[in-house]
Parts: sequence; C-alpha cells; structure tokens
Amino acid sequence: MTAAPQFIDLNHHLSPETLARKVNPLKDIIRVVTNNPQLISLANGDPHHSLYPIRRIDYEVASVASDDPVAQWKSLGASAPTQILSTSKDDESKRLLNSALAYGHGAGLSEALRVVTDINIKYHTAPNHVVTMTLGNADAITKCLRMLATPGDSFLADEFTFAPMPMAAEAHGVNWVPVKIDSGGLVPEELERILANWDPKRGRRPHVLYTTPCGQNPTGSTLSQERRKQIYDIAQRYDIIIIEDDPYYFLQYDAPGSEPAHMTKDFAKSLLSIDVDGRVIRIDTFSKIMAPGMRLGWITSHPAFHTHLVKFIDLSTQNPHGFGQILIVELLGPHGWQLAGFDRWVRSLCADYQRRRDFLLALFERDVASTGFASADVPEAGMFIWVRVDVEKHPRFVRAADDATGANVVKTNTTTLMTELFDACIADGLVICPSSVFILPADPRYDDMPSPIDDRSNFIRVTFAGSEETMAAGIPILGRVLKEFFAGSSPTK
Amino acid sequence: MTAAPQFIDLNHHLSPETLARKVNPLKDIIRVVTNNPQLISLANGDPHHSLYPIRRIDYEVASVASDDPVAQWKSLGASAPTQILSTSKDDESKRLLNSALAYGHGAGLSEALRVVTDINIKYHTAPNHVVTMTLGNADAITKCLRMLATPGDSFLADEFTFAPMPMAAEAHGVNWVPVKIDSGGLVPEELERILANWDPKRGRRPHVLYTTPCGQNPTGSTLSQERRKQIYDIAQRYDIIIIEDDPYYFLQYDAPGSEPAHMTKDFAKSLLSIDVDGRVIRIDTFSKIMAPGMRLGWITSHPAFHTHLVKFIDLSTQNPHGFGQILIVELLGPHGWQLAGFDRWVRSLCADYQRRRDFLLALFERDVASTGFASADVPEAGMFIWVRVDVEKHPRFVRAADDATGANVVKTNTTTLMTELFDACIADGLVICPSSVFILPADPRYDDMPSPIDDRSNFIRVTFAGSEETMAAGIPILGRVLKEFFAGSSPTK
Repeated sequence: MTAAPQFIDLNHHLSPETLARKVNPLKDIIRVVTNNPQLISLANGDPHHSLYPIRRIDYEVASVASDDPVAQWKSLGASAPTQILSTSKDDESKRLLNSALAYGHGAGLSEALRVVTDINIKYHTAPNHVVTMTLGNADAITKCLRMLATPGDSFLADEFTFAPMPMAAEAHGVNWVPVKIDSGGLVPEELERILANWDPKRGRRPHVLYTTPCGQNPTGSTLSQERRKQIYDIAQRYDIIIIEDDPYYFLQYDAPGSEPAHMTKDFAKSLLSIDVDGRVIRIDTFSKIMAPGMRLGWITSHPAFHTHLVKFIDLSTQNPHGFGQILIVELLGPHGWQLAGFDRWVRSLCADYQRRRDFLLALFERDVASTGFASADVPEAGMFIWVRVDVEKHPRFVRAADDATGANVVKTNTTTLMTELFDACIADGLVICPSSVFILPADPRYDDMPSPIDDRSNFIRVTFAGSEETMAAGIPILGRVLKEFFAGSSPTK
Repeated sequence: MTAAPQFIDLNHHLSPETLARKVNPLKDIIRVVTNNPQLISLANGDPHHSLYPIRRIDYEVASVASDDPVAQWKSLGASAPTQILSTSKDDESKRLLNSALAYGHGAGLSEALRVVTDINIKYHTAPNHVVTMTLGNADAITKCLRMLATPGDSFLADEFTFAPMPMAAEAHGVNWVPVKIDSGGLVPEELERILANWDPKRGRRPHVLYTTPCGQNPTGSTLSQERRKQIYDIAQRYDIIIIEDDPYYFLQYDAPGSEPAHMTKDFAKSLLSIDVDGRVIRIDTFSKIMAPGMRLGWITSHPAFHTHLVKFIDLSTQNPHGFGQILIVELLGPHGWQLAGFDRWVRSLCADYQRRRDFLLALFERDVASTGFASADVPEAGMFIWVRVDVEKHPRFVRAADDATGANVVKTNTTTLMTELFDACIADGLVICPSSVFILPADPRYDDMPSPIDDRSNFIRVTFAGSEETMAAGIPILGRVLKEFFAGSSPTK
C-alpha cells in the first residue's frame, strides 16, 4: 500500500488538532493505566466487574456440522441440532465476559477484531487494512460520511439507492451527485463523465463514491470484475475514496436452475481486494448472514481512517455492545463454528436464498412476465428483483414531444401511473416498493442526465427474502393488478 | 404539561420538512405493512427469522431474593444464588426473540420501552414524557446535542465536566459556556448572571443547559432540591432546555458511618420530576447499575423531542441491539427480578458504593487530610471524591499581584504545580485524574469568571469505584507523594 490518499479531508468541526488537544488528556491517562498494569489506578470511574449481575451468557446456535446447515436448520425445526456457546465468570472465558461487560476501546474488543480480521483474510485480499467494529452498516456509513464530509461537499452514489443513507449525508451538509446505474450496476463511463466535466461552480469535485457492488439495493445489480477495475481506475485518477457497502457479499448466486456451485467456488473479488492505495473503505455486517437485530458489523480501512473512526466512536456511541461481540468471538472461536463452520453457514445460506430467488423468478415468469407488461433481470446477488414496468404500453401514458422542453424536464406521466399502480396493489392486498422512494436527490441546477430520473422510475422492487408462502400469494396478485391496470381501468382511489 | 418549549430549534441540516419529504416514503411503506398484517408484503428486504441461527439466549443473573443481594453476590462468589433468564424460539418468549433479532423501530422494542417506562413511573413524576432507548449516555447526549444544535450555538454546562461530552458538541459546531460549580454543584446565581448579561455579539442566547445533578463527574457534587428548583425556574424564565444526564441517580448516599437508610427511603427528586413544561430531557443508563459494556440506556423527553430523536436514530445507529433489550425485558419481566427486585438490587448496590465511599474517606482522613495539604467534601452520590490540593502552601507557588493583570488572566502557577504532582504520583506508582482534563473549553473573549479556571484547577479526581485493595494501596501513596511534594522537592523527571 502506498501512502494514504491525498484527499483525506476531515470534518472541519473535528480536526485532528482539536481532537489531539482535547480528548487525549483523558485517553492518555486511560492508556497509561492500561499499558502499566503495575500502576495503582484511582483514576477511572468504572464499575468493578464483581458488581455486574451477570454470571453467564449462553447462546444456543445452529450446528454447522452438516454440509448444508441452513437446509437442516429449516427442515428439522425445533429438533435441528444445536450447540451452546457459553461464556462464564467461572471458567476460562471469564476474561472475555468481564471485558465485554466493561467500558472498552472504541474500535471493539481485541478478540472481536481478531475474528473479523480472520473473516477478511479468508474472503478478501487487503494487506495493511485494519478493522473497526460497528453497530451495523447504517451506523458505519453515517460515521464514514461524518469523517469524510465538510458541509457543502458533493458525494457520488448510485442514482437509485437505499433512501436513509443519502438522508444521513444531507444531515452533514453533503449534496449528492447521482451516477447512472443499469442492470450491471453503476456505469463507469457515467462516473468518469461527471468527474471530467465537473463544474467548479458546484463546489469542489467529489472525493467520495458510495456504492453497493453486490445485489445493490434496490436494483439487485452486481458489478462485474471488469466494472470494478474500471471504477477503481477512475478513483485513482480522480483521487476518490470509495465507500464499499457490501451487505449482500455472501449472497452471490449462480444462474437460475443450476445447483448452487458457489457452495465451493470463490466469492467475487471485492473492491477492497483490488485496493492498493488505501482508498477503499469497506463496510460489512452480520445483519444478513446472522440477524439484523444483532446490530453488529465492521469497517475495513486504511489505518488513517481507522484512527479517526475510533475518535468518532469515542465521542458518540462508544465501544460496541459486549453481547454481540461475545457471540461472534465464541461463534468463530475454538468452541464454536470456527471459520470453516462460518463458511459452511454462509454458503448454505446463499444456496437457500438462491432457491428463494429461483422460486420467485418462476412465479414471476408464470404470472407477471406473461402479461407482457413487465420484465426483470435475474439478480446475481442480494434479496431483490427490480421489475421494469412497461408503462409506455399503458393507454393513458403520455410523452411530450422531444423538442418541446429542456433536457432535464420530465416528459412523461410515469410517476403518476406508477403511483396508481402502487395504490392498485395495496387495494388488492399487496405491498411492493415503488422505485420513487429510492431516487437519490440531485441538485436540479446540475441535472444533465440524458433523461430525468422521474421518466425512468417505472420500476418496482420485489424481495425474495420472505417466505415461499408470501411469494406464492403475492406474485399472482401483482400479475392480476398489472393486467387490470394496463386494461386501462380508471385509477383506484 | 403545557405546549412544547418555544425554543425547540432543530438542526438546520435536518429540518422536519426535509425529513418528512424524504424519509417518510419508505417508512410509510413499512408502517402500512406493520399496521395491516392482512397485507402480503414483498416490500421489506428483511431476512426471515427462520434463518437466524440463534434458538435460545440464556442470561444467568444474580438472584435478588435476599434483602441485600449485592452483598450476597460478592460474598458468596461462585456459589451465590442465580436465576436464568431464558428466551427461546420454542416457547412463549418466541415473539420477543424473533422481534429482538429483526430490524426494529428506532425507539426500541415495545417491550423494552415498557420496562423503562415502569422504572420511570416508580422513581420519577413525569406525566406525558415518553421514552426512547439509547446505546448508553454518550450516545444519548450526542443525539440530543445534534437535535438541539445549530452550528454557532452556545450551550451551558458545568465548568468542570466529563471531557468527551463537550468534544462531541464541538463536532456539531457548539460553543460551550461554563457555569461555575461549587461543592453543591452548579451555582444557580451564576447561571442567571450569564443569561441576564448575555452579549448578543456572542450569537443567540444559550437555549440548552447540560448538567449532571447527582454525583457530578468529576466534582462528585449533588444539587440540592432547592438548587434544582432555582435552576428550573431560571430555565423557565430564559426558555432553556435542560439535558439532565443522571448516570449516578441510583448511587445516592447518606452521611458517612450511618447505616444506609436509603435502603428504604426515596431517592432525590430528579429535574424530570419537577418538569411541567416538557423542557427537561432526562438521560438514564444501565451502565452503572448493571454493566457498562451493555451499552443500553434511555432518554425520557417531551414527545416532540422523541419524534426527532427517532428520526436521528433511523438515520444513524438504527434500532438498539436486541441482546440488551432482551436482557432488560426478561430481567424486569414476570420471570425475572421484576421491578421490586430491580429496586432491591439498586438499593443494595447503592449501599455497597456507600461502604466503598466511607472506606475511601477513612483512608483519606488518615493518610491525606492529615498531611494538611489536601481536603475533600463528602460526596452524596456517584463514584468520585474531588480532592482540593492546597497548592498555595507549596514553597514554589507564585501569585501575581491582583492589579498587575486583567480579570481573566492566569495569575498563579497552579497548572504547573498540579502537573508536577500528577507526574510525582505516576513516578510512585499511582494514577489519579488531574482536574485540568475536565475543564470545559470556554471562549477566552468572553471569559468573565471572577478568576480563571486554571487558577482554580488545584483539584484531583479520585474514584472509589475500584476494589478496597486498590484504595488501600493507592491512598497512602497519595499522602506520601503530597508530603514529599510540599516539602519542596524539585520536580521529578
């Protein structure tokens, strides 16, 4: 790895100098105590561990002894084999329990950092990057945005993206710049076009790109290795820091109908793995592979970012909760699944989601695509299919003459029709996500997309994360509503 | 409660209008799904609970059947009676486990909100205030500051305070205004003086006061009921929102040597309890009464603040971790300690800390006060004694003539001597906290304190939270170092 990116620009409210001057005195004292166990400390006001009323925590988790542990877990139900991860004040795990229940280092417990580092080493090539524990990806993204943003900055992101994330950045004074996305994910040529033609009147050129390479939410698209390389090259040339938000990394699928070959093959190479400059900040989570309510994940970054992230953590959420850290330490440790068992679990989980995807796609072909009014690409990863509605076939579809208006003026009534379709689904008992809720807010003064996103918002997001019963009940409704809707019935109110 | 305070001024980056327009579409869809269970949802991309690999969580906790459960817990060690709080997919607690491990409402699980509301009702009088779960007080304070701060604002706080909290506010562009504190805590007359004489050149008048009413960190001071009333009156007249950070509420002591009468008597009345306007935002935590590594607490506020806090949570840390919420729900629930057992635990814990305080005070009298170079008030709450060092008795103490300099110019070498004392303690194997690390940073242009805080920083913070062994080993060192130091030996180093 070369030196840190030149363009590390930290929030002016919280400059390194300010932090060094004001936080370090107290932290220095704690460090003196930690590094010199022979010293007697009357300094830290920490409750003594003898007063914690917790003697033992047992997590009963799925066994991963079989080749397909998720299938077994689901089919055997209450009789599926389990193992108990026990952490107690009374045995060798005492130190872990005591330190997990105490105030801790902002980065996380050293044991937890070690297990996520082991995960990184198995799945990514990222020498010299270091890990920081988080409370899941929303927390991680918010902290990265705070670290990298100065109010007035412009950041790049997929033009359709998970709605709360851009909102969080706006709270830090960031303006978003949408980059066009297609069925293969973010389009490198569009990224380059924006950067090459950047108008200085908009403020300084963006130095941050937020993107989701696998099973992007909401479009379900996955970046090919070639696009990843192109995007990284552009980032090097324009000195961009890439926030790689990759919650669906372990849910990467093969072609429909095929046996899940990824049970043995390698997962796609992450942006982190091709990072030689330290410009990729990768964000991982246990939410999709374990449980979202765990609120635990990790950031992998250049050490310079790690140092600042830890300062942000010490000044806000502090050390991550001990309960989740104990679970992952025991789970990945010698008495738990270990890394080989974790790998079996995530591959088995991936196979399960691939079957769900294929189940949904089959229903979709039969009941929705067959109407001739909608289509969808096969997602290679994640939890969503992105359904294109052929809104231009609707009897009330209207398009203004091309020469009648300016480049970024809405020319169609797509938004109105899609709202009617959403309402019609609700009226028939089905909830789907309209694409409009995922539109990245752009500055209209600089919107030079070939066509306005409102005219391209003829998509709905449908998930296959739910049960087969839900899909079997929901997809036929979608097909029926589409047929009625395109038959030109007046809007359900 | 009357209407919300007039002076609710939310961060301009994240105005209610912005939030309503941009977050609500997706949240609206989730609300539609939640409120209409008969609808079939293909909208939310949540992993199905059948895929969470966790079947059961057992917390083995102290029994609170005895009258003094903490004393029993400590004295019986590994043979102390316990009870197991079990939450499982296979029994009546299934719903709790499934919802705790799923994505959840930013405010917290409804079951968790109910148990902290029960705690509030038992200990406080706060009709119409509502609760929001947090990740402990640092998280809570940061979120309150974000909610209330517009960059350039001035906020009021105790002149000595826990260092990371003012730092967090500075990151949001807040300037701090120190209010003088004495052995009885924040001085109401000083608060009024600052507000009455506010110079508009400093920006708008402060509308937020951050204070710790019980066992303030670092001074150990506790506000009397009379001062609380005075401070609340001032807050009403100047329309101030009070952030009541009260981690030591349950650690309130009687006079030294007395039997812990508070085992039965009422705890002091919180600022929340006297709040009729909705202008007190109270912050509680399980860190001091259970374990800090839990990272769980709650905010009690006017519903208007709650609404905005939940938006901040949805845009950053999201719902609090399920593990800690399960623990408190089970602990306070019908199979756990219940509220009566919780009350026994906190009162017993309080008695334990009172004994620790008295143990430390006796050592202090014998080894430190006896030197004639230091003294301390008896703290009525918390974990700290605030030791006044009679630095003016040091042979190298220097004071400039009063007429030689301006009002806020440092006149003594107190800081230098206190640094030497700190270093001398370290050299003899003892770590204490010098008061300098707790000084609230003030704008020197407006520092009109009767004397500069540097000249009043002749204090050290000593904790009685540690073990008796630590105190018995540490306090004699402090006495010895003081004697040598005041004998005028040259600075170590």
